[in-house]
Amino acid sequence: MQKPSNARGTRDFGPKEMAKRNYVFDIIKKHFVEFGFQAIETPSIENLNTLTGKYGEEGDQLLFKILNSGNYLKDISPEDLVAGSKKTLPKLAEKGLRYDLTVPFARYVSMNRNELAFPFRRYQIQPVWRADRPQKGRYREFYQCDADIIGSDSLVNEAELIALFQSIFSSLRLKTNLLINSRKVLMGMVDSLGLQNQFVDFAVALDKLDKVGWDAVNQELIDKGFSIDQCESIKSMISFSGMNQEKIEYLAVYFKNSEIGQQGLKEIQTVLNLSETNGFSNDNLIFEITLARGLSYYTGLIYEGKAQDVPFGSIVGGGRYDDLTSSFGLPNMSGVGISFGIERILDVMETLGLFPALNASGSQILFTYFSAEGQRQAFTYCNVLRKEGIKAEVYPDVTKIKKSFEFADKKEIPFVAVIGDEELKNNQISLKDMKNGDQQLISISRLIQLIKA
Amino acid sequence: MQKPSNARGTRDFGPKEMAKRNYVFDIIKKHFVEFGFQAIETPSIENLNTLTGKYGEEGDQLLFKILNSGNYLKDISPEDLVAGSKKTLPKLAEKGLRYDLTVPFARYVSMNRNELAFPFRRYQIQPVWRADRPQKGRYREFYQCDADIIGSDSLVNEAELIALFQSIFSSLRLKTNLLINSRKVLMGMVDSLGLQNQFVDFAVALDKLDKVGWDAVNQELIDKGFSIDQCESIKSMISFSGMNQEKIEYLAVYFKNSEIGQQGLKEIQTVLNLSETNGFSNDNLIFEITLARGLSYYTGLIYEGKAQDVPFGSIVGGGRYDDLTSSFGLPNMSGVGISFGIERILDVMETLGLFPALNASGSQILFTYFSAEGQRQAFTYCNVLRKEGIKAEVYPDVTKIKKSFEFADKKEIPFVAVIGDEELKNNQISLKDMKNGDQQLISISRLIQLIKA
Repeated sequence: MQKPSNARGTRDFGPKEMAKRNYVFDIIKKHFVEFGFQAIETPSIENLNTLTGKYGEEGDQLLFKILNSGNYLKDISPEDLVAGSKKTLPKLAEKGLRYDLTVPFARYVSMNRNELAFPFRRYQIQPVWRADRPQKGRYREFYQCDADIIGSDSLVNEAELIALFQSIFSSLRLKTNLLINSRKVLMGMVDSLGLQNQFVDFAVALDKLDKVGWDAVNQELIDKGFSIDQCESIKSMISFSGMNQEKIEYLAVYFKNSEIGQQGLKEIQTVLNLSETNGFSNDNLIFEITLARGLSYYTGLIYEGKAQDVPFGSIVGGGRYDDLTSSFGLPNMSGVGISFGIERILDVMETLGLFPALNASGSQILFTYFSAEGQRQAFTYCNVLRKEGIKAEVYPDVTKIKKSFEFADKKEIPFVAVIGDEELKNNQISLKDMKNGDQQLISISRLIQLIKA
Repeated sequence: MQKPSNARGTRDFGPKEMAKRNYVFDIIKKHFVEFGFQAIETPSIENLNTLTGKYGEEGDQLLFKILNSGNYLKDISPEDLVAGSKKTLPKLAEKGLRYDLTVPFARYVSMNRNELAFPFRRYQIQPVWRADRPQKGRYREFYQCDADIIGSDSLVNEAELIALFQSIFSSLRLKTNLLINSRKVLMGMVDSLGLQNQFVDFAVALDKLDKVGWDAVNQELIDKGFSIDQCESIKSMISFSGMNQEKIEYLAVYFKNSEIGQQGLKEIQTVLNLSETNGFSNDNLIFEITLARGLSYYTGLIYEGKAQDVPFGSIVGGGRYDDLTSSFGLPNMSGVGISFGIERILDVMETLGLFPALNASGSQILFTYFSAEGQRQAFTYCNVLRKEGIKAEVYPDVTKIKKSFEFADKKEIPFVAVIGDEELKNNQISLKDMKNGDQQLISISRLIQLIKA
């Protein structure tokens, strides 16, 4: 006998968790569809050469690799053991588990370029796997939930995704802020200081601002060769506070000689204007100059969604990319994507008590009885109810009535129908309301009316 | 640049396939819920000690194993290379991918025995992975779709699953036969010949009858030590044809001295009687004496569903098991399960043309325009429509009208709304019906009425 356990960093979802998860998934899906996004699914298993090199060195290490089938050791020599894991990997494993939904999407678009109508709006909700060290709130298997519009560089797409963001969280009744910025604005900052070649150093340092504070970022920039004056300029750019419009005007002065910076501001302006027509305002759509987003494939607008009432970090991320599919042989495919951090959204909803009362039990009514004939009648009635769309189940055994009531209680089934000898004779059902204990003798047709009401 | 491809034996599902898959999944889910089944999900990754030894030697070989993280070669010695893959496996891989939904379900039930209300009705729809040689219609990653009632040995549960089977295929408009038998009937056959110790040999041979015919089965039995007379008796038992009731009476004569055989027939009788009250008849619920089902964990009733109009093999399988959870430390948990072969059901539906017209496009209407102002208006209107539950999208660029019409055509979007200068001035929309080419000038409120109609 073995003591059963889950693999480290993985979870089971029981009926109650599933009800909550499906509540959120269903709302997100509904809005994806409303916005014309089409569902796709890609396989969990990808060739390693599709995955490796796409997520940086750290990402490569976090890929789950699948051992080749058959005698996987046959090509391994004693020298390989000395050479180490990295060199030997191709002989042991050719496949890996999906690390995110973006790279498989890029592969899919490249492979199906001739069938798809561009701009292609796709959504995808599937699990991904990362060999991270498990810790509270971080799992090795978790769902991602992405929507992208690829094959168009129009800024209306950014506005569409922002409107989508707004619709979803409005339906979930979760108050959020959406922070937006542009990679081009960040480029404008270094550009305006004559440091255009050090954009990556700058973005990497700035990305940590939230966690480490300005002094540490300042030190990192100095270490990378920024002068004290340049750091001061950056500090004044990023620490300016004001309304969106004021920030744009403030930066415009710095960006007098930076074309890319001006372009970034113009794009922010366009997206803000479009979003305003849709009811977004400074209150919840914030031009956040310090927002950097780690992922290197972003090239234009970037954004990050946060819950207003809890300090949970970001629950949504995304941005514009220009070159996602070129590593799969399809260059010049600009796109913009949004990713809903579904696991964290569920945590926030739980913390804020935003879930409505959800019936995880399935059944609305349980049938119980005292004889084989009662069982037969219960089974028949149950199937009549189901044809009416009522969720029903038969208690499987002739048992003490108390036991079936306890079962209904534990499973939170609101009604129990008892079929005894008298009920059988009169074609009736003794119906008990489990909430208030009320009991009444009624016919099957009356029962249907009552439960449907 | 790399030529992108799917890993061998895996598939992408584009919007059109997804629409078909979701059509079938949604119907199955609806009926699962109607019958009081509760959703659970288990992780894709399980500890290998949960999986190995559960599917026979062949199954163990077909498990996808996941390479340990970090320097996975560090514990491998040159001697290990000589010892071979099997012995070295525990040092290289501790986790594997789910092979079916039954073993993870058993693990889940064992781990959550104190929280669950028994009998527990669960359903689970998730992918599984098998390192099979890929071939037409057989994939390495595919969905399974299971419903089980565990924690009760009542035969009403068998009848419930048969009623579930009937409801689902009736909704899918797919004509099916359900073949039922009992392991106990099969045991009765060998028992009645004094061969009770050779049940496994008998079941293994009989399981192949469909594929290899009686002569080969006969030879296999002879090889296993059955006498010619005994084989003749078996032949006459399994080749009897008649109505369900006649078969029961015919076998009862053979089973005069076999308690287990009599019990099997009684169980078949009970389930047939219950199912009759629910409209099942000899026409589509068939007592099939030769049905054996390969899996060794079945102990009572077994069944197999087939499509009537195509020779596609079984599309549903299942049966009663008594001891699924004991290897996880929870003995005496009788249960009964049904598994819908979702990938094959999809193939059958496709072959028989049973899918209704499905709108995979998402959007019901596409907005197009000729200016920045038109774009703004289009974006605003789109969001108004979405709030009415209408699926809408904005064509992202100012473009030639022809191009956006071609896009709508390719994506099968039924309506295009054009917003030109005149329309802007008059707060109107020029609506084109893509099916018949009709065009009309209307207001947004009229448009909403029209599309909702």
